[in-house]
Amino acid sequence: MAGSSRRAADRRLQLPLLCLLFQGVTAILFAVFVRYNHETDPALWHWGNHSNADNEFYFRYPSFQDVHVMVFVGFGFLMAFLQRYGFSSVGFTFLLAAFALQWSTLVQGFLHSFHGGHIHVGVESMINADFCAGAVLISFGAILGKTGPAQLLLMALLEVVLFGVNEFVLLNILGVRDAGGSMTIHTFGAYFGLVLSRVLYRPRLEKSKHRQSSVYHSDLFAMIGTIFLWLFWPSFNSAPTTLGDGQHRTALNTYYSLTASTLSTFALSALVGGDGRLDMVHIQNAALAGGVVVGTSGEMMLTPFGALAAGFLAGTVSTLGYKFFTPILESKFKIQDTCGVHNLHGMPGILGALLGVLVAGLATHEAYGDGLQSTFPLIAEGQRSATSQAVHQLFGLFVTLTFASVGAGLGGLLLKLPFLDSPPDTQCFEDQIYWEVPGEHEDEAQGPLRTEEPDTRA
Amino acid sequence: MAGSSRRAADRRLQLPLLCLLFQGVTAILFAVFVRYNHETDPALWHWGNHSNADNEFYFRYPSFQDVHVMVFVGFGFLMAFLQRYGFSSVGFTFLLAAFALQWSTLVQGFLHSFHGGHIHVGVESMINADFCAGAVLISFGAILGKTGPAQLLLMALLEVVLFGVNEFVLLNILGVRDAGGSMTIHTFGAYFGLVLSRVLYRPRLEKSKHRQSSVYHSDLFAMIGTIFLWLFWPSFNSAPTTLGDGQHRTALNTYYSLTASTLSTFALSALVGGDGRLDMVHIQNAALAGGVVVGTSGEMMLTPFGALAAGFLAGTVSTLGYKFFTPILESKFKIQDTCGVHNLHGMPGILGALLGVLVAGLATHEAYGDGLQSTFPLIAEGQRSATSQAVHQLFGLFVTLTFASVGAGLGGLLLKLPFLDSPPDTQCFEDQIYWEVPGEHEDEAQGPLRTEEPDTRA
Amino acid sequence: MAGSSRRAADRRLQLPLLCLLFQGVTAILFAVFVRYNHETDPALWHWGNHSNADNEFYFRYPSFQDVHVMVFVGFGFLMAFLQRYGFSSVGFTFLLAAFALQWSTLVQGFLHSFHGGHIHVGVESMINADFCAGAVLISFGAILGKTGPAQLLLMALLEVVLFGVNEFVLLNILGVRDAGGSMTIHTFGAYFGLVLSRVLYRPRLEKSKHRQSSVYHSDLFAMIGTIFLWLFWPSFNSAPTTLGDGQHRTALNTYYSLTASTLSTFALSALVGGDGRLDMVHIQNAALAGGVVVGTSGEMMLTPFGALAAGFLAGTVSTLGYKFFTPILESKFKIQDTCGVHNLHGMPGILGALLGVLVAGLATHEAYGDGLQSTFPLIAEGQRSATSQAVHQLFGLFVTLTFASVGAGLGGLLLKLPFLDSPPDTQCFEDQIYWEVPGEHEDEAQGPLRTEEPDTRA
Repeated sequence: MAGSSRRAADRRLQLPLLCLLFQGVTAILFAVFVRYNHETDPALWHWGNHSNADNEFYFRYPSFQDVHVMVFVGFGFLMAFLQRYGFSSVGFTFLLAAFALQWSTLVQGFLHSFHGGHIHVGVESMINADFCAGAVLISFGAILGKTGPAQLLLMALLEVVLFGVNEFVLLNILGVRDAGGSMTIHTFGAYFGLVLSRVLYRPRLEKSKHRQSSVYHSDLFAMIGTIFLWLFWPSFNSAPTTLGDGQHRTALNTYYSLTASTLSTFALSALVGGDGRLDMVHIQNAALAGGVVVGTSGEMMLTPFGALAAGFLAGTVSTLGYKFFTPILESKFKIQDTCGVHNLHGMPGILGALLGVLVAGLATHEAYGDGLQSTFPLIAEGQRSATSQAVHQLFGLFVTLTFASVGAGLGGLLLKLPFLDSPPDTQCFEDQIYWEVPGEHEDEAQGPLRTEEPDTRA
Repeated sequence: MAGSSRRAADRRLQLPLLCLLFQGVTAILFAVFVRYNHETDPALWHWGNHSNADNEFYFRYPSFQDVHVMVFVGFGFLMAFLQRYGFSSVGFTFLLAAFALQWSTLVQGFLHSFHGGHIHVGVESMINADFCAGAVLISFGAILGKTGPAQLLLMALLEVVLFGVNEFVLLNILGVRDAGGSMTIHTFGAYFGLVLSRVLYRPRLEKSKHRQSSVYHSDLFAMIGTIFLWLFWPSFNSAPTTLGDGQHRTALNTYYSLTASTLSTFALSALVGGDGRLDMVHIQNAALAGGVVVGTSGEMMLTPFGALAAGFLAGTVSTLGYKFFTPILESKFKIQDTCGVHNLHGMPGILGALLGVLVAGLATHEAYGDGLQSTFPLIAEGQRSATSQAVHQLFGLFVTLTFASVGAGLGGLLLKLPFLDSPPDTQCFEDQIYWEVPGEHEDEAQGPLRTEEPDTRA
Repeated sequence: MAGSSRRAADRRLQLPLLCLLFQGVTAILFAVFVRYNHETDPALWHWGNHSNADNEFYFRYPSFQDVHVMVFVGFGFLMAFLQRYGFSSVGFTFLLAAFALQWSTLVQGFLHSFHGGHIHVGVESMINADFCAGAVLISFGAILGKTGPAQLLLMALLEVVLFGVNEFVLLNILGVRDAGGSMTIHTFGAYFGLVLSRVLYRPRLEKSKHRQSSVYHSDLFAMIGTIFLWLFWPSFNSAPTTLGDGQHRTALNTYYSLTASTLSTFALSALVGGDGRLDMVHIQNAALAGGVVVGTSGEMMLTPFGALAAGFLAGTVSTLGYKFFTPILESKFKIQDTCGVHNLHGMPGILGALLGVLVAGLATHEAYGDGLQSTFPLIAEGQRSATSQAVHQLFGLFVTLTFASVGAGLGGLLLKLPFLDSPPDTQCFEDQIYWEVPGEHEDEAQGPLRTEEPDTRA
């Protein structure tokens, strides 16, 4: 016991050492490469003789703040539904996202805003970094409770790079449109997480089954996450679109889609529930699918009716997924998807990509007028037909699925390195092995910590 | 028992069927009637050769998001104070408001922005729809815990229409000013809910009395609702006002008024409390009355002092109402007002309307300068004197009370239809009959569900 | 007992009477002095023939709302970590801040915007008032649980005046730059609270020790506060800076600094924790130190790397402070710092001031270009060298420490006035003596209230 306890204590050093190492490296890279852009640098901005009102800050920062709330409050508290994993859900979200913001600023900066040997940063790089953090947290949702924080940081290290490359291929090479990230964020994040969960499959996870459910209060905390995600999703999808009608239309479409996914989620949850009762898991998650499904098409001429129809479909598919497909995922495919990200981000993300194919394929000069240049510049400039754009959109989906799957396969091997600190099967979904936990679990908190016991003896 | 159980299960189908029916109907109406307006349609916007910075989105969307948070987080969590009704409070708020947003977009669209056979939508229709959802949730507060979700959807169906018609009569026919909705939202929503509660009076509600109180944690969840309502109320009242000084002044007045209602609520709560102790019910609710009371006059020349005085009065009246009037409402008037909406929205709403009468009656060209055109266009154009405006404002209050009372009377008869799914007296304020409820109520969750027992046997 | 009970009931009148008195006085002062400024007054605004888009409201109000959320949700819930003091933490935050907003509008108005016999108000006065409320709440954190609400109101009465005077001396007389308030808000608020805590030292506070910790749920409520503070800190630091690149750069710097303080906090917390486990107290507090430390320099040419380095340092110092210095503060210096404001606001505030000295001293015309006029007007106008500015910045720190210490010494004597209602040592950190507390503490709530017992007998 003493030896294993010692070994465990050594492993606990992995988290602080990785934090310090990663922070050191990003700080050096920031020192060498990162500079204010022309909207944040006083000399550049004032040299330009702009009106201050023209600074991008005023057009994007309110949306950025909404996105920021979604990433940290939304994802963090949504995952706090587990009865004994609230500290880890909120806390590791905080840690992972903070690191992802720095790292993604560098990766995306090298790919998108590297000029004259420097990365130039401003509010758009903040939005993009938060988007990338969102994808990392979606993947976190699939493996929630089954990995230690050091493993999670390694996952983020890898995923941020792959996210950046995939996004670059789609947006800059293939000319795909995906403002709200049905593909680049949701599909990518979900399938990355699901494949990772497959590689990390734990056949004896039922040892922690009693902790893998909610209690009354934890479900209310999770609803804080849900509601803030739902409220600010119009800002999420519209944050990076073209100014003017683009942001306005995207927000409106997302708003309608979410109302419809909420109605279909309540309907389906009651229909498939025992005695017609509603299931909080569905309400907390599937009601949000309307935001995911218009991530690609929200900036296009989806029409208000199209937004309602898309949202309705997404809520339906997502609720049915929680009810019928998640159990199969585990039993047949050995994918243990803690938060059901396949239902909230995976299937609605793919539906959103396909909806983007459809709506892009229907684009006409008539419908968009001079606004075609903003939404589909390659079509407006005659470089592509609408059909060709649709085909490129579809290809983007396959690229994304490939990047996510192959990347997560490699990532899974990385995370399985035997010296990494990972919770034993008996201690999954349990805050206590990573946190000093006060009262309400007092009985356990006072006894000697039992996490050191080898799995086989538990 | 088997028969009644079967009957109950059948009744549970009412919620999903209504959701699907309502969504189907609104979707068809959206397909036929709803179109992007000139600020969200790419062809129309770009044809106009506007600067993107002029898009209404940038002037209204941040306020809209604050209003959106108030409706879903504010009202939802404020009502989560009940110890066993948190899922329903937050969940039914979510459902009702999502439906109200769609339905109200149609109803208000037909009344306010129907041109060339189409309803035109943008950020202003989003704000108006959220306002209407707010009124529906105020009414929900009066009957909280005593109605099933299918009944609530029917209430919303009716109330949204009446809200739209009443608002149209006030703003467009009578030329009443009511930006923050002291009349159209708060007075209307409160008295609609109170009359509804009267029609649905339950003489044996004491059977659920033990659940009609809070516990420590549920009061903290409710404070999340309170604080977000309090913080964003300046955005609520200023969201639909004229741009520039109008929005700015309204936000400022509301901010001052709320600080004063907070101080008077703490003072009065301690004065009337046992042993000078504060009552959370007062703090959660009456402190917000300052937002309600300047709903009409906030955009006018209320003056900062006037805002403080109004807020102080509203907090006082509201706290005293909770202490002394709510018990009488039940015992004498047979109105069981679960959340005390009469104290938070009813009386402060009427006070706000009367304050609007006063401040409108005092309007002069001198005080408003060229801004008179924005605040009181009919006075500025010489069509009305300030006194005449005041009389119209007063008349608007009576119209509102009439619409609310008569409408809710009809609504009450609708909700009393015997085949509708309604909780028995023994199961009011109880999540379990509509939700799968995890732990912390384990003793009950495991026993057979008792909601099927006829009232007379309980 | 009857006599002491009577006396206690009398003392309970102090809160309502102070609320009414303070509200009466501020209302009269508002009536006499406070007027709309040229952006909120319809006659003045329309006379100016401005475009509505130029109204300061659109540049500052979104930031203001974020600051507003930080003050009420952030500070309020952050302090709700105590197991039995959630009502007081959130409720007294609400009361204190509401009063401070009114009172500070007057005090700062007299000092900063008093023209023609009147104080002129608009969104900037709202931001400044919220900043002052933030300082008051920082001080509250040091004495949390050990003072009654009447004492707290008296503290606010005094502190708001001293805050205003100190800020005036720094910004207007010394020409110090301190947009995000490392000195004026954090250093001032922290040392005011710490000295106050010293004067109010309770040698027998261990009688309430069992209540001075968190429980599982209270830690999650506190994380709501933490996360909203963390998210909106970029808006806090940038709310009052110059428009355009100034606001933009400040938000960006703060964002980077916070990510770094989060990483260093996780690293250090695990390093110094038992068995490598993380401590929620560190995560809730020290992760925020990155916002404090760039309060002065965030608007300057800190560079993105500088922001990371500063945040990293602040998180490190703050975490180590919680672990090693807070116990010494109590044992050696007799300072009982309930929330550890010395670690979150005190030391990081001083570091932030020193960082400001450094970055100001490095200012060159080259680095700032024509933007120098916005950030360092006195240097741009040739009235000062960068070195001189740095010296003034340093002097500002000493002035702040002096004002805070001397003022809090006087304040402590005021709060020790024997007739003031103060909780006995046995009833510190306990909601029940000031609030009607429902369930979950039922055993105590039903017994006779024991707070009336004299200290010596407990």
